[in-house]
Amino acid sequence: MPVKEAAEIEIIRLMKAGRGAYTSGQSLSSSLGISRTAVWKHIKTLKKMGFQIEASPSKGYRLTGELPFNGVEVASSLSTKFVGKNIFFYPRIDSTNIKAFELGRSGEGEGTAVIAEAQDKGKGRVGRVWESPAGLNLYTSIILRPPVAPQFAHNLTFVLAVAAAEAVGLFVKQRPTVKWPNDVLVNGRKLAGILLEMDSEPDRVHFVVAGIGVNINIRREMFPPYIKNTATSIAEERGEEAGRAEFARSLYSSIELWYKIYLDKGFLPILEAWKGYFDAEGKEVRVSSFNRAITGVCCGVDADGALLVKLSSGKVERVVSGDVETGKT
Amino acid sequence: MPVKEAAEIEIIRLMKAGRGAYTSGQSLSSSLGISRTAVWKHIKTLKKMGFQIEASPSKGYRLTGELPFNGVEVASSLSTKFVGKNIFFYPRIDSTNIKAFELGRSGEGEGTAVIAEAQDKGKGRVGRVWESPAGLNLYTSIILRPPVAPQFAHNLTFVLAVAAAEAVGLFVKQRPTVKWPNDVLVNGRKLAGILLEMDSEPDRVHFVVAGIGVNINIRREMFPPYIKNTATSIAEERGEEAGRAEFARSLYSSIELWYKIYLDKGFLPILEAWKGYFDAEGKEVRVSSFNRAITGVCCGVDADGALLVKLSSGKVERVVSGDVETGKT
Repeated sequence: MPVKEAAEIEIIRLMKAGRGAYTSGQSLSSSLGISRTAVWKHIKTLKKMGFQIEASPSKGYRLTGELPFNGVEVASSLSTKFVGKNIFFYPRIDSTNIKAFELGRSGEGEGTAVIAEAQDKGKGRVGRVWESPAGLNLYTSIILRPPVAPQFAHNLTFVLAVAAAEAVGLFVKQRPTVKWPNDVLVNGRKLAGILLEMDSEPDRVHFVVAGIGVNINIRREMFPPYIKNTATSIAEERGEEAGRAEFARSLYSSIELWYKIYLDKGFLPILEAWKGYFDAEGKEVRVSSFNRAITGVCCGVDADGALLVKLSSGKVERVVSGDVETGKT
Repeated sequence: MPVKEAAEIEIIRLMKAGRGAYTSGQSLSSSLGISRTAVWKHIKTLKKMGFQIEASPSKGYRLTGELPFNGVEVASSLSTKFVGKNIFFYPRIDSTNIKAFELGRSGEGEGTAVIAEAQDKGKGRVGRVWESPAGLNLYTSIILRPPVAPQFAHNLTFVLAVAAAEAVGLFVKQRPTVKWPNDVLVNGRKLAGILLEMDSEPDRVHFVVAGIGVNINIRREMFPPYIKNTATSIAEERGEEAGRAEFARSLYSSIELWYKIYLDKGFLPILEAWKGYFDAEGKEVRVSSFNRAITGVCCGVDADGALLVKLSSGKVERVVSGDVETGKT
């Protein structure tokens, strides 16, 4: 949405601050430092974006009805310093990660976000598909530019997992769990997934794109058969629908918070927070990666976040990539 | 240049095999399995590409004069299995790395090469410029898809350095040296530079773009002032001009060879070969990286290829990224 929508965002912000009362054209005009005609033009744009705005010649403008879901709406109530301050919003797109990667390549700054109503080629980890129907869920990708070497990008996997789990927890009002390394589960079912992609030289990261898909208002009967028994949504878990813009803002706040902790204090506090969501320790796990699979008992993660699996031989394997299925005890 | 130019490449290959004799339209037509009219159309295309072709109604076609420099010419005498088999050639481009990265994102396969006659935004390491005037040098980028995690991409830096040094050595007829990690020098002056960029997830590389700039026929007086005293070219060092297509083919062969050695046998043989070109051991070095610089005596590299620098305190620092200047002893 970038800078050109800055006026729209500010007008919505001011009208929201009016809490249902009218905001005069004059006060919008002086707050923004633009003419009343310019204000009127921006109001017209906002209406096209789906905002319901009542205009009274004597009293001014006020928001009514339900707010639409778009970048202006997300940004107009945002409390972050950089994550989501610049939002590119698309009704339909191939994949938010593909777009954010392009934006990163063309130099867009840290915190720039892409949001889509629907994805035609939603990307999951290791080349999988992320189911992305329109109008129900949140599909967003964020550009981060950590000043680190590529081997540390794996740390961000955990930063994002903690941030997403925190945001999900606030909405479902129960503690989610994380599946190593970064799926967010509620009652054993997947609610959010994360895909990190990176552009780098061998010794320095140019940028990372953190893509997050969160099932928000999708219902179980709407999931395709292959994930019907393993996926869930915020609406399912808390029994009522949730606002997507509200969730996006909460997620962006969590990401900014945990990302700053990582940059300031390193990986240790991230890993500690992540362990608070991790419940596979002591359970049987099966890990498949590339062309092999191992089965054993999970004995936690090491200081780098690698998964430790004790085989029946007693040997402990250190797993740095792969997919995990968790059994009972 | 892709598949659509396959016929052009094959026609040039067959005419080259004729060694100056005419190749009949009929034999071209039957070798390629296309009509004689189609052959004639491809000949027309080749003429537009700068190939000088004599046509005789009774005898057929033959190549005369100097060969142009383009993707068809490079590919028509190539002896590799995959490096450079698919060439995208541009008379002028922003940067071959930018284009190759886009091609990698859109799924082009391993070995795909981009060549440009000139670059407007030639990229050097750490955001620097690579001087890229038209018509004199080789600017090429190759897509590789090694099945490794991002931290191993640094190994490819050495694979490319060895391959480039080997190709340069064949042309200047003396042994080049490498400046850590991957500049190729002849008589202490820079002749080729390498920039690796990578697209990955935290635990697996999607692809690496290896960009190589080689000064071939540029003369010292043509270098801009800031590199006049530190840069050189193949023509300067061997006293006569060299064929750019010929050099590109030699480079692609070396890259394929050393890349296969790396995939089959790992990093050890690569590092050993690299050490054969490295001459800074025992010399004073100054390494700058990000916002600090250290000075000391180089005591080689470790098993990961990190530079070892002995400070005056006696402590040995391990350097994984940065720029090196070498002093006397």
